[in-house]
Parts: sequence; structure tokens; C-alpha cells
Amino acid sequence: MSIYRLKNYIRLLRRVIPMLLLIHSTTFTFAQKKATWIWYPGDFEIWLSNQMQNRRTERATFFPPFWRMDNPYVLIDFHKVFNLEEAEEVMILAEGQYNVKLDGKMIEGYPKTIHIPAGEHKLNLKVHAQGKVPAIYVQGKTIISDSTWLVTNEDKEWIDETGKASDQSGTTWLHAGSWNFNAPDTKPSQFHLATTPQYAVSRAKKDKGFLVDFGKETFGFVKLHGLKGDGTISLYYGESEEEALATKTCETLDRIRINNSNRDSTINLSKAFRYVYVEPAEGAQVDSISMLYEYLPLEVKGSFRSSDEELNRIWEVGKYTMELTTREFFIDGIKRDRWIWSGDAYQSYLMNYYLFFDSPSVKRTTLALRGKEPVSSHINTIMDYTFYWFLGIYDYYLYTGDKQFIQQFYPRMQSLMDYCLGRRNKDGLLQGMAGDWVFIDWADGLSKKGEVSFEQLLFCRSLETMALCADIAGDTKATELYKQEAAQLKQKITEIYWNEQKQAFVHSRIDGKPTDHVTRYTNMFAIFFDYLDAKKKEGVKNQVLLNKQVPKITTPYMRFYELEALCAMGEQAYVLKEMKDYWGGMLRLGATSFWEEYNPDKTGAAHYAMYGRPFGKSLCHAWGASPIYLLGKYYLGVKPTSPGYQTYLIEPNLGGLEWMEGKVPTPHGDIALYCSKKEIKVKAGTGKGTLRIRSAKVPKGKGVNAVEKSKGLYEIEILSNTDYTISYHTQ
Amino acid sequence: MSIYRLKNYIRLLRRVIPMLLLIHSTTFTFAQKKATWIWYPGDFEIWLSNQMQNRRTERATFFPPFWRMDNPYVLIDFHKVFNLEEAEEVMILAEGQYNVKLDGKMIEGYPKTIHIPAGEHKLNLKVHAQGKVPAIYVQGKTIISDSTWLVTNEDKEWIDETGKASDQSGTTWLHAGSWNFNAPDTKPSQFHLATTPQYAVSRAKKDKGFLVDFGKETFGFVKLHGLKGDGTISLYYGESEEEALATKTCETLDRIRINNSNRDSTINLSKAFRYVYVEPAEGAQVDSISMLYEYLPLEVKGSFRSSDEELNRIWEVGKYTMELTTREFFIDGIKRDRWIWSGDAYQSYLMNYYLFFDSPSVKRTTLALRGKEPVSSHINTIMDYTFYWFLGIYDYYLYTGDKQFIQQFYPRMQSLMDYCLGRRNKDGLLQGMAGDWVFIDWADGLSKKGEVSFEQLLFCRSLETMALCADIAGDTKATELYKQEAAQLKQKITEIYWNEQKQAFVHSRIDGKPTDHVTRYTNMFAIFFDYLDAKKKEGVKNQVLLNKQVPKITTPYMRFYELEALCAMGEQAYVLKEMKDYWGGMLRLGATSFWEEYNPDKTGAAHYAMYGRPFGKSLCHAWGASPIYLLGKYYLGVKPTSPGYQTYLIEPNLGGLEWMEGKVPTPHGDIALYCSKKEIKVKAGTGKGTLRIRSAKVPKGKGVNAVEKSKGLYEIEILSNTDYTISYHTQ
Repeated sequence: MSIYRLKNYIRLLRRVIPMLLLIHSTTFTFAQKKATWIWYPGDFEIWLSNQMQNRRTERATFFPPFWRMDNPYVLIDFHKVFNLEEAEEVMILAEGQYNVKLDGKMIEGYPKTIHIPAGEHKLNLKVHAQGKVPAIYVQGKTIISDSTWLVTNEDKEWIDETGKASDQSGTTWLHAGSWNFNAPDTKPSQFHLATTPQYAVSRAKKDKGFLVDFGKETFGFVKLHGLKGDGTISLYYGESEEEALATKTCETLDRIRINNSNRDSTINLSKAFRYVYVEPAEGAQVDSISMLYEYLPLEVKGSFRSSDEELNRIWEVGKYTMELTTREFFIDGIKRDRWIWSGDAYQSYLMNYYLFFDSPSVKRTTLALRGKEPVSSHINTIMDYTFYWFLGIYDYYLYTGDKQFIQQFYPRMQSLMDYCLGRRNKDGLLQGMAGDWVFIDWADGLSKKGEVSFEQLLFCRSLETMALCADIAGDTKATELYKQEAAQLKQKITEIYWNEQKQAFVHSRIDGKPTDHVTRYTNMFAIFFDYLDAKKKEGVKNQVLLNKQVPKITTPYMRFYELEALCAMGEQAYVLKEMKDYWGGMLRLGATSFWEEYNPDKTGAAHYAMYGRPFGKSLCHAWGASPIYLLGKYYLGVKPTSPGYQTYLIEPNLGGLEWMEGKVPTPHGDIALYCSKKEIKVKAGTGKGTLRIRSAKVPKGKGVNAVEKSKGLYEIEILSNTDYTISYHTQ
Repeated sequence: MSIYRLKNYIRLLRRVIPMLLLIHSTTFTFAQKKATWIWYPGDFEIWLSNQMQNRRTERATFFPPFWRMDNPYVLIDFHKVFNLEEAEEVMILAEGQYNVKLDGKMIEGYPKTIHIPAGEHKLNLKVHAQGKVPAIYVQGKTIISDSTWLVTNEDKEWIDETGKASDQSGTTWLHAGSWNFNAPDTKPSQFHLATTPQYAVSRAKKDKGFLVDFGKETFGFVKLHGLKGDGTISLYYGESEEEALATKTCETLDRIRINNSNRDSTINLSKAFRYVYVEPAEGAQVDSISMLYEYLPLEVKGSFRSSDEELNRIWEVGKYTMELTTREFFIDGIKRDRWIWSGDAYQSYLMNYYLFFDSPSVKRTTLALRGKEPVSSHINTIMDYTFYWFLGIYDYYLYTGDKQFIQQFYPRMQSLMDYCLGRRNKDGLLQGMAGDWVFIDWADGLSKKGEVSFEQLLFCRSLETMALCADIAGDTKATELYKQEAAQLKQKITEIYWNEQKQAFVHSRIDGKPTDHVTRYTNMFAIFFDYLDAKKKEGVKNQVLLNKQVPKITTPYMRFYELEALCAMGEQAYVLKEMKDYWGGMLRLGATSFWEEYNPDKTGAAHYAMYGRPFGKSLCHAWGASPIYLLGKYYLGVKPTSPGYQTYLIEPNLGGLEWMEGKVPTPHGDIALYCSKKEIKVKAGTGKGTLRIRSAKVPKGKGVNAVEKSKGLYEIEILSNTDYTISYHTQ
């Protein structure tokens, strides 16, 4: 290019660039609103859960779930009515084949941008996709795709012989689903979690290969470096060193075939492990391995620290356990199932409210569990897991105050409840029918026969949830119906199962006769459901919860509720000891995340066995992390008393600690608390709180008005965004 | 390679080749049984219908259906128990991720062949796929995948804490679905129809391009030859010359962009047309076009010829119309909808029984129409179309005797009937509710208000179908229930709608009062449903069917039934004239396939208009081909009298023809017939037939035993595989 030409070229650029900038700014820079990819609500969640739940392998063999998996709808109509002050250009993207209608008139082909004149207009997009979720992304100056769009999977828009369209009066419209796909190129079908490199902390020669230790339980894609030769390299994964070296019985493995073609390789399917035993076959070589840690990027909003370092460590490991198991969804454990189990997820929800307060994760998981119509089995085939699903929605509403979610999915709640109501026996009770798994807990010899009291109790709470949700959905008739059903069932439970002599609910009724077997399950739930009067509560506490004759619970899963029940009765000091004993016990065995099951009586590698397999147990299981929940709700003592923390209670309980401090997240700001035996500091970013404390003297501080509710029990109103420092005297 | 080495090499080959052949023959040559790809029954059909029904375009714009489209299940368990005399190697293929269990034990990885020892063994495959149908192909010596395998979409196989599996007692197993994917490489997901090249019969320069005529209505992929330059080439398709040249209003078009890169190009999406107007834009060139005709390869088993050449031409064009519209499924028309409409399909089934007798096409279409649970609208949103779906099953069973199909899909029939029963008003009648399309027919000003008698009549017949199918499915209680409901409804129909003075059913009841408006629909169906006594039949014939005051039918769709009703009453001579007039009328206008609608009163291009669009009408519509059915069933007069033609009737009626001859296919052989006014020849490959003829004298012939049933009416028993030549005297 000559100088002359270059000059001309620059001159041209000087003229063109401002024009380009102008065009660009006209179209997009002034866009004040941000579009997001949208879909039929629940459909992306179902699609993604299919992707995830079919990633389980057992020793390199595909191991999918045994329940029905559903599908997104393949054909969706999206629409919204806009009122434009001035004309605008609108960019349109879709996942799938699509058409665009403006005011009912189709635009030829697959338009990528359309011009919409000023005034009121209706914009429709209809999208078909098979194998991915029909989704759209629409971005104009004011017109954007978001959850205010309405969607349907059957628009019922037929025409008569003159070409006149029907009025669509039979069509059900829902608000579009969305998450965080906020850019044109972040397509839902391309979703993947975040990754970051991690490296081994040690390496040792073993047998025909080498053992790598990543220092702690982790999850991701192993990368092999310095590959040479021709042959197979086997990777044996272990949550324990023993497992990684047990090439015949470790739960997961990979075999990759190399043939002089590439130096590095990354395993396709992520795995859970701390140790990897790498064994190249004759002729194949590998220098080293590293990994890509895979995770859902979530902000940890909750915190807890105290005068007890072991307890702090328990909280930290609980947090890490939750970070590992909070992924596309709240899953049970990262090594083995990688499935969404309703009972496990329910506990993750509760812990989440004291850790991430991530509502989308709760909603995704709830929707994936529920799937589509018709209901043909209990959730995960488990009767109790159906009820945890309802309970999860009860809590979700209480913690978030999100009414729209309930309004949208009330029909799916109702059909699931219809399924349950339709399976009652002549006495109105539930017992296991063909295909029903009555789970309760992993416990040796636990009876599932007859009408188990635990199932009736959860059923009752689920009916109460339905009454609440029917009311939110404006279904007055059903509200009354569910209330009545709940009240009747509650009465029946007491009549049938309460044993006055034992001061406990018995475990079950068989052939019309209550057994005299007592287990902890029904009794502990009845406490925090607040189904018992004070006298019965005391009876249960002493005759069941603190009674060593009643069979011990060995899963962190049910310890969660057992300790919650004790906390709910003010036994924080006892529970603190239990936590240090049980969770501290796992830490002393070297746990870097909490386990699926822990029995202190076992020793050595016997800890790793379960399901008849030497390494069947998961060493990173969400339900192991319950101290997160207990410490937030019953020690810091923060809980909502009306939906979404409009009002809430702070009832700190040191349980023997010198001091503690922490934060509890809420939808509109954190609640920060410091508490020693003499002083409490509070600052809340939300709602109107009540601090309830016992004190030998009237608590004092700036702006503090302590009202004595009963002898030595004071309540102090906490206003938002105000620093309180309160001095008091522990009794 | 030296000579020495070559010799050694040949010697080696001599030893190895027989071994290879031996291995090969051991594994596959002795395979006596032929495997086929199998899937969850109904799922391939739903998947394929999604593919097909989303191929409609209107002027290059995607135009999908407005009803709910369903999805195959994503996760399927297949199993069968085999008893092997000797061990065998079994080849395994799957569409999707899969695992293999032999006797409940998983085999590592994704095995492609497995060894199965002698003895009894259970083989399970579990397959996951999203976006295509989970399917398997298993081929051993005796072990093959076929429809005897059992499948489920929820195996409910959980384990307890000891690793013990549940007994799967809650699992529903169905027989696998299959079609004709009988080789390892004919994967269901790769399904496509057959194609063959076709060439234009003429070409003329027009405006800025050229018009190509393929000589008759056809369907397929246009190929462009001799492409040059850079620019867009537009293809405007026409079923008529007028349409192809109407670039602003033709129903379908394609625009392809070329840029000097390739000489030839084939359009991706098949189209229906006879004419194509090709218009290259400035800078683009195309020498010529040809096409790939796309079709379902089916044998035409039925035939008809007669002394009337026009009638023969009508039969031939009817046959071609059926060949064009019998594709992945029986569709309505090839130009426009390409959707599966239950009312249209129902007529295709009936014609099919006299043309292809292809049961798989009936089953595919029936399953695709029904989709999955739950029922959320009528089929195609149309109330009458729900009922045709039931009627189609009634006929399917009568013509084929296939009980297994009914046993497998009885639950889907039942849930659809539950939906209908649940929508009855307080008087037990159906009327259009929100979202219900009451269609009946395309007819100006046809009232859909109130309780339309036609819908009740079809509902009644559907209840009768349910009684029949409940019985086949072994559901005794439901059999009685459906029988009762049908009987009650039948009585109500007469009570409410029969107008003694008009000797007709009136059209509807509005606000509890029967109208005095008479239409043909209810009346003609009541005749061939045999719901009327002889007196009422005569009344209907004269006061409705032959009464020109009653609004005329203008669609071949309802002419089908109108003429059937007249034939059922012996009016073949009248109907023959009507056929020559109506279908002959289309032929005289140059039709090469039959139309969606034909009104002889219109002229010129006005014939092509419908739905308010100048070329909205489909000129190749399955429902236009009804003479295929009428000529087979009411002129050749062949119809089954028990399921699957175990017994059947031949009641020939020349209707004024000098002679006619033809074949009617059945599940186990054709029934061939020649009939003149003096002589009848019959040869049947199936069942036991009854030839019923009127004759002035006793009919005679070898092996003929004519029994006079009433004055001049004789019945002759027809045995299979026997030639009969019967002389008789037309009365």
C-alpha cells in the first residue's frame, strides 16, 4: 500500500468510524435494560437434570437413575405486548427453528433483527427444538426477553375456513423461566459450570504407576500431561488412599487409550476424588496429572466463627461440603450418585439459607425433582421424598417470600398431592404400595411395614403446605380442603400413634394395631413441626431423644433432624457436644468433607464401606453438612417469622461457647451478629427483627428498648441498617 | 516384498482365511433369526412426528402446529429372558449411552459384543438419549432384539443399604416397539424416506426467470444444476401454474444464496408442487432444475378396473393422492400442513385397507396422534378428531385382528376417554368448552353452538369402541361401564335430536332446546353406524341425503361419509354418478391428485383459494381420495365381518357398470374379484367368505352352493385359495 493510498484509507476510516459508532450506539448502547435467555418454566431445569443425572458411572459403566426422567416441551410460543414511545430495532436469537409474528402477522424467514414501530405491539416467537430447550433472547432498546414474557406449550391457535384465528381461550400462559444467561452467546444449551486448574500436593510411586494426592476431596476433570507411546492408561479414583489403590473395587475409574498422537489429554467426564492412582500399561507413558476443578460460582454470604476452633473447622468443612455438592443442582454426593434426591436436597435448601442464600439453586432443584405430568411414582420413587418436596416449598416461601414461584407451579403441586391422596388406604393413611419405596433412613432392620407414623407426619405437614400454597394461588376451595385434611390427619396421628406410657409416638401400625416400637424419627420431627404441647415435648425429649435405649441414628442425614429437635428445645449445650463428637470425629479421621454415614464404632477402611461394597460410601455428601444450618438457625439463632424476612427473630444461644459471630443472609441484606456472654452486637440489612435474650438484668444499649416478656426474657426491636451494641448478663 | 516373503504371506493367508471364515460363520452366518431395532412403544412414532410436523413452512417461514407436541422418554430399560442350548456371542448396538446387565450384573464400559453361556439368562440394556429415541439392536445366534422384549421408562430398581435390589413390583412393562429397521446400520435416528430422480416435462421462459412443469403433482427436493455467479435464486412453488407465477402470494418458496462455490445444489426441505418458477437475481445463474421425488416405499395391493374409463382414472388419481400423502405418517396434504390430523388420518386408514393394507402406517399414525400423558386437549385440539381416533382403533381391530396393539395402548385410550367423560355437562352431553375446536367440516356458517348432535354421535361410537377394547385388554369392569355409557348416550341422542316430522336428527340443542336445523352430518353417520331402524333409514335417505334443501357438502372430506351412507343403503348407481360428477369434475379441471375442497360452482383460479388466501387450498389432500374406499368396500363390496378377515362378506354392486374387477388386500392374502352382469369370479387368499348376490335365477358354478336367504338374495360360501366362477342373472 502506498503512502498516498494509506492516507486516503485513513481519511475514509475517519469518516466511517463515527458512523459505525453512531449506528452501534443507536442500536445497542442506549439499551438500558438487559435481556436474558428465556424458556418454558421448568424445562431448562429438566433438561439440565437429565444431562447431569446421566453422568454417574460405576467403574466406567454408565449408571443412570431408576426413576422416570422427563423432557422439555419441544414447541413453545413466547409473547409479550409492548408499548413503544418510539420505534426500535430488535435483535432476535433462538435455540431451535423459529418464527416471529408482529401483531399476529408472520415475518418471512428467520429474521435476526426486526423493526418495531412506535405504539402498542404484540411480539410472538414460536420455537421448536428437539434435544435442547426451545429458548429465545430478544434485545432492543426497551424490548427485552425476560421473565415477564408469557409462554405456552400449546397455543391452540387454530383458524377457521376464512382464515380467522381462534381466541386461544383454552390456552394456559405462564411466565417464562430464566436464570443468568444474560448475553447473546451464553446459550442455555451450552451451559457448563466454571472450572479452574488445581494441582496435586504430593505424588508417590506405587506398584506399576503412581499415586497422586490433591490434598483434599475435590471434583473435576483430570488432565494428563506428557503422554507418550501407545497403550492404555488407567486412572483409579479414590476419596481415600485405600480406594484409589484398590484397582479391583474402587468405585470410579477411567481408561484412556493413547497412540502417540497427543501430549496432553483431559478426561471427558468429571469425577470426585482426593487421590488418583495412575497406571500406564506397557508401552504407554504419562509424566504427571493435574485437574480442572469444576464448580458453580456462588458467593458465600453466611459465616460463623466462635471461641471453639474445632467448631469453626466443622463449619468450614461443612461449607466446603456444600460448595462441592451445590452444582447444576443440589446433589447428594459427588462421587457416586450425582443424582438429585429430594430428601438430600431438602437439607441442602435449609443449609443454603444460612450459606449462599441462592434462590435459583432451590428453584432449579425443586423443578427438576418434580418433572412433568403425569405423576406416576413418588419423587425418586420414595414416599418420604415426595413430602420433603412439599416441605421444601414451605421453607422456600418462608425464607424468600417468592409468591410467583408458587403461583406458577401450584398445578404441579396439586397433581402430586392428588397422587398422594389417591393412594390412601380405607383409614386415610399411607402405606407402601407396589413401587413405593418407604425410605426414612439407612438403618439396619428399620421396619417399613404397615402404616409408618413418620410417613403420616410428613404427609400432614405437606397438606399444611398445600393449604398455604392454594391460598397464595387463589384457590380458596382447595385451601379449605387441604386445611381440613391436614387437621383430620393430625388428630389421627395422635390418636393412633401416641403412646402415653412411653411418652412417644410409636413407629408404625400393622394390621390395624399400633406397634410398641419407638424410633426417633416421628418424635423428633413432631417437635420442630410444633405438633406437641409442652408436656409431650418434655416427654419426647427425655424418653426418646435423650434415651440411649432408643436405636441410635448413624447417618448425618437423620442426625440433622435429631439435633434440630434438641436445639428447638434449647439443648444447644448438649448439641454442641454432639457436634464436636460426631462431626469432630470425622475430622479426626482426616475428613476434608463430610460423609454419607459415620459410625464411630468402626475402624480403618471399614469406614468407607456401604451397600455391600468396600468403597460404596460417599465421603462428600450434602447431608453431612448440617452444622451450617444448626449454627445459623439455633446458635446465631436467626430465622424468619414472616415470608422473606419481613420480620424475623434473633434468639442467640451460645450453648457453652465463650463467643460467636457470623452473618445470616436474607433476600434483602445480611443480618450480622456478635454474641458473647455479656455483649451482643447486631446489624441487619433487612426487615424488622426481634432480638430475644435471657438476661439477669435489663439489657442496655443505644437505641435499645428491652421489653421483658416473662421473667428474665427480654425482646428488643431491631430496625434495619442500625448498629446495636447491647450489654446484658447471661443468667 | 520379496518372492519368498510373498509365498510365506500367501501360506499364512491360506491358514488364516478359513479361520476367519469359521469365526465369522460361528458368529453370524448361522444366525437364523433376524434382529430389528427396538424402542419404547410409541416413542419413535412421537419423535418422527415431531420431525415431520415441524417441516411446514409458509413462504419460507417456519410454521409449526398449535397443539402440544410430546417427546420420547429419555431413559429406557430393555430386557428379555433367554434359554440357550449353547453359549453364544451377542452383538450389541444402542442409540445413546447404555449399560448392559447379564443376570443383574453390570458389564464394564460399553460392551459391543458379549458372551452368554448356555442356560437361562436375563439380559438388560438401559439406554439414555436426549433428542433421539433410546433404541437397541441385539444380534446373536438365537438372541435377537425384537418386539418380544419388554421395556419400561421407570424401572424403579432401587437398592437398600446392604445393596439388595428392590423387586420392581411397581414397574409396568410393555412390549418393545419396532418397525423395519432390520440391519445394524439402519438406525432409527437416521430414518429418511426413499428418493428417486424425476425430471421436468416442460420449461418456458417467464418474466425474469423460467417456469418448469413436472407434469403432475409431485413432492420432493428440487435440485438446481449449473449454478454460476453470486446472488440469490428464488424458487416459487405452485400446485397450479398460477400459484408458481404468483411470487407475492404462492404458499411456498425457497431462496438460495450462491457465491461461485458449487455447480449443483439440492434444497434441504422437500416441497409439494407441480410447477416451479425459478427466478435468479442479478448476478446469479442457474441452467436447469430437476428433483428427487421422496416417498414411502409401499406395495399397492388393492386394485380396481371397470368398464368406465373415467371411473378408472378416478381410482388411479385417488391411488396417486394416497401415495403422495402416505409418508412418515398419513398426513392431510403435502403442500401445506404436512401435519397429522386425526380426522384426515381416519379416512386414510379406511382407504389404506383397500389399497396398501399397511398396518405399520396405521399404528404409527395412531400413536403419533395420541402422544403422551397427560391429556390436556382434544386430539389436534378438535373434539370430533378425538372421536375419530377411537373409531380408527375400532376399524384397525376389525380389519387386522391385532389384539396386542390394543392391549399395549389401552391405558392411553382410557385416559383419553376419561378426559372426554370429564368434560360432559350436567346432561351428560359434550359441548365446546374453552380450548375445544368443534370442527365437523369446512362449511360456511355451520353452527358449532350448544350441544351439537354430531359430536354426541361420534362420542357414542367411541364409547362402544372402548367397551370392545376394554374387553380385549381384560378390563371387565370397564367393559360394562363403557357399554352402559354408550347405551345411555345412544338413547339420549334419539330422544333429544330425532325430529319425527323432519325424519332426521337435528343439528344441535341450544340452551336446552333442540333446534330445527337439519344438516347431513349426524344423519349420514347414523346410517353406516347402523344406529337407525329401517324406517328411519329410509326417512333420512329421502328427507336428508337426497334432499337438495339440506345444505350441500363441498369438501371431499364429508362427501366421503355422505356417499358411504348412500352406498350402505344400496344407492351405488346414484353414488357412481356423483363420483363421476364430483371427482370427474376435478379431473376435467386438470387435477392430477384430489383436492382439499371442490366447489363446482367456482371457476378458474378461484378454485385454488381457501382460508382467505389465493392459493391457500391444498390440491393434494388425502381426504380427496375416498373413491378408493367406496369402490373397494361398496362396489367390489368386500368387508370383514370378524376381526382380521377371519370371516368376511363380498357383496358386489355394479351400480350401473358393465363390469368391474379388482383386488382387496387382507392380513393373510388378497381377495380377487371379477364381476359382470352375468358372471362373478372370486379367489380369496384368506378366511371364510360369504358372497352375497341378487340373482333372478339360482347362481351356479363349480363348487358353488347358493343358499337363498330371501327372495332373490343368495349367499355362497367362499373358501380360501379356491377359484370360483359363478354365473348369475342380474335382476
